[in-house]
Amino acid sequence: MEQVLTGTKKDSIKQLLASTEYDREVTVRGWVRHRRGSKEVFFVHLNDGSTIQNIQIVVNASNLDSNVLNQITVGACLQVNGNLVASQGAGQSCEVQASDVVILGAADPEKYPIQPKKHSMEFLRENAHLRMRTNTFSAVFRLRHAAAYAIHQYFNERGFFYLHAPIITGSDAEGAGEMFQVTTLPLDNPPKNEEGKIDFKEDFFGQPTNLSVSGQLQGELAAMGLGLIYTFGPTFRAENSNTTRHLAEFWMIEPEMAFYEQEDNHNLAEDFLKYLIKYVLENCQDDLKFLDERFTKENNGKPTNERSEMGLLEKLEFVAANDFARVSYTEAINILLNSKPHKKKKFKFPVEWGIDMQSEHERYLVEKHFKKPVIVYDYPRNIKAFYMKQNEGEEEGRETVRAMDILVPGIGEIIGGSQREDDLEHLKTRMDEVGIPHHELEWYLDLRRFGSAPHSGFGLGFERFILFITGMANIRDVIPFPRTPGNARF
Amino acid sequence: MEQVLTGTKKDSIKQLLASTEYDREVTVRGWVRHRRGSKEVFFVHLNDGSTIQNIQIVVNASNLDSNVLNQITVGACLQVNGNLVASQGAGQSCEVQASDVVILGAADPEKYPIQPKKHSMEFLRENAHLRMRTNTFSAVFRLRHAAAYAIHQYFNERGFFYLHAPIITGSDAEGAGEMFQVTTLPLDNPPKNEEGKIDFKEDFFGQPTNLSVSGQLQGELAAMGLGLIYTFGPTFRAENSNTTRHLAEFWMIEPEMAFYEQEDNHNLAEDFLKYLIKYVLENCQDDLKFLDERFTKENNGKPTNERSEMGLLEKLEFVAANDFARVSYTEAINILLNSKPHKKKKFKFPVEWGIDMQSEHERYLVEKHFKKPVIVYDYPRNIKAFYMKQNEGEEEGRETVRAMDILVPGIGEIIGGSQREDDLEHLKTRMDEVGIPHHELEWYLDLRRFGSAPHSGFGLGFERFILFITGMANIRDVIPFPRTPGNARF
Repeated sequence: MEQVLTGTKKDSIKQLLASTEYDREVTVRGWVRHRRGSKEVFFVHLNDGSTIQNIQIVVNASNLDSNVLNQITVGACLQVNGNLVASQGAGQSCEVQASDVVILGAADPEKYPIQPKKHSMEFLRENAHLRMRTNTFSAVFRLRHAAAYAIHQYFNERGFFYLHAPIITGSDAEGAGEMFQVTTLPLDNPPKNEEGKIDFKEDFFGQPTNLSVSGQLQGELAAMGLGLIYTFGPTFRAENSNTTRHLAEFWMIEPEMAFYEQEDNHNLAEDFLKYLIKYVLENCQDDLKFLDERFTKENNGKPTNERSEMGLLEKLEFVAANDFARVSYTEAINILLNSKPHKKKKFKFPVEWGIDMQSEHERYLVEKHFKKPVIVYDYPRNIKAFYMKQNEGEEEGRETVRAMDILVPGIGEIIGGSQREDDLEHLKTRMDEVGIPHHELEWYLDLRRFGSAPHSGFGLGFERFILFITGMANIRDVIPFPRTPGNARF
Repeated sequence: MEQVLTGTKKDSIKQLLASTEYDREVTVRGWVRHRRGSKEVFFVHLNDGSTIQNIQIVVNASNLDSNVLNQITVGACLQVNGNLVASQGAGQSCEVQASDVVILGAADPEKYPIQPKKHSMEFLRENAHLRMRTNTFSAVFRLRHAAAYAIHQYFNERGFFYLHAPIITGSDAEGAGEMFQVTTLPLDNPPKNEEGKIDFKEDFFGQPTNLSVSGQLQGELAAMGLGLIYTFGPTFRAENSNTTRHLAEFWMIEPEMAFYEQEDNHNLAEDFLKYLIKYVLENCQDDLKFLDERFTKENNGKPTNERSEMGLLEKLEFVAANDFARVSYTEAINILLNSKPHKKKKFKFPVEWGIDMQSEHERYLVEKHFKKPVIVYDYPRNIKAFYMKQNEGEEEGRETVRAMDILVPGIGEIIGGSQREDDLEHLKTRMDEVGIPHHELEWYLDLRRFGSAPHSGFGLGFERFILFITGMANIRDVIPFPRTPGNARF
């Protein structure tokens, strides 16, 4: 293995391509994406991951050893010394005239799995260790980085504090779904107590523990002292769903704000989404342009009735520039009841006040009726979680809570949140109704006992947001290491 | 429960205290930290978590209902409308002359656990849902936020991409310690196969899975396509260590850089630590001043030989301004062999080439010999992980690898890293020697098969770094929800 030079300035290809300081010696390192030209003079497109753009290397064979020349193949890793010059060709501003090429790592062209052709997404998922070297995935993961950074910047600028909610938790009170158990007990022979049940006193934490499904309750705890907080961490669902929309391990952003009521919550969530979209539009133009073209090709290959009306960039610019629709659940149900698909019995699932809206209903509201993102609020109490603040003065059987969902075109629900129940007695009554023993959440009740305050929050599913901004179709393709039923590779 | 006004401008106390626009109506919300004065005119110190500073509210009892007056007690949550005026008293720039006070949430003074006195750390850990309302913990968690933000800013500015390494992993190849098992199998009656062993085909992922101890191997995978990446996520060790330095769940930052060799790695790590320290010195003055005073009080209460020579702020400024010492492992051992404690047999553990240095040895190097942070590199191969790059041309029995540890005063090891073995044959040989079957890490070997490149990386334990910048003594007090043997509360 040849060595790179320690301490040398490591200009990235992104930096070199942005430079206008020509006619100087540079060192560039990266992986070969293409090679074309004659045996005597050929062009190598080198990429180092810093940008979707390749830098063109002009190689004059007479300068180099034939052993080196033969190893300049797709996938090989090179270090090139040469002169940075303004490019003669179209499509690039500058190129490097190689004076020296070092093969850092060869790639046998007979065996290297990633070729300059279109691979299926399934094939690339199997070769996840190499998909970072493709245009599509490197663009997706650079955008993922940019979105994550924008999230931290948004909250930091507004005085929110980043909170690390626990991953391993002894609480399963939220009841948001199936959970993964965490244990150090020997599975083939766990200790049992006198009643013949698993003796969790012998387990690491002295009690049963699971992987967290949400950091919200702990987020409320922090907001009731620090004021404004947000979490950004992994959450888990052990649901056996093999779909393009579900992961067993995914990342969530959950801000929680003391002194915010329902409308404040809606305002923050809308502002937040628009900020993130504007950030990537401003900072990721190259990658978005590539993904926009990719999206258009995929879209044109679909049956007409499944096609998106807007291109990717067009959609992002539209969402960033226009107010979201805001509609109560009751109004939304009335819109659905008056809709053509309902009247013509085209909905698979029935529509009536009290239902948990299905994907077909949400899509109708977003894509057909409003044609933009929609905030739906004031949901029936019985279909929502115990901690949501109850509205007052409603007739029996029509009680609602200050919940909200934000629905976006092509994805459906991307944000869910609510104002929280801050009244101790109302909260206790609700816990009794849904069967949560008070002693399991004494600390949560304490937050209402001592210095309670109105507060609100919401959760954004990070991968669903990345689907939205990249136009990718499968959630497994927007997370580096997808965890799904039967798959924990890498 | 009284309501706050939706949509009203929510100035934080931090913003109000920084304002010089006096004689205007403001609304302020927060929790009562102190109340003093007479029955007729009294002063309330209100805190909303945005800053360690309280804002002073001047209450004239004749303006308010007696029921409201009685509920203005420590821990209660208030909304105050009033006039923002320049303060007459010392210690604050401005104060609010209350025209109206709303009790958002009362706190029964007989029952509220957090009083304006010094509580023990143990007591506050038990009441973790209220410790965010204390000066010490709110300062610690604001600093934790600032450090996390600085980490993202540092890497983003330098073209690194944030990578989410997997939390649940099927790989246990790193062998970094005891792991937590993750399963959906029924613990009391797990399915068994024909051989009578647990049938993991029935488990969620179809194989045994654990919680990740490090994202490094996956980070290498990403760096070999994206170039520069970093992880920042939770990692787990199921070690039964009840110490002030260990957690079962903790956060790590792991950058990984294609084309970086050993010295580049040292340079980046030193620059990174200094950047973070400068960031908090510039952005967290109030909180650091408070923690500096706290540290000095604690330090003065210690026996002379355990006292830190420097105060907290003094130490941070010193580390930010001075070069780290850099010394090879072999040189470090020679320093120890020539040291007074070695010659006077004061070390508990023996010193000779090949040992894994103990805390007493590291402390001697950092606190007595160099009196500043030290980068120790080129460790014996046999005490380090299989993936570290082997140095060449060394005599038998004295083989070293390009590992490095950064040791800092008061904490010991805060960063560990290495250049990685990028030579396929060397890596395979080393895996054979330590007994890791190749098929378990085929993808990792593929990175050396196709376009290999020199690369390096390191890991920073986030909580250890927070201990360092806050001067706190116990790692359980710098993470919101500590997970330790027997403790998974909240």
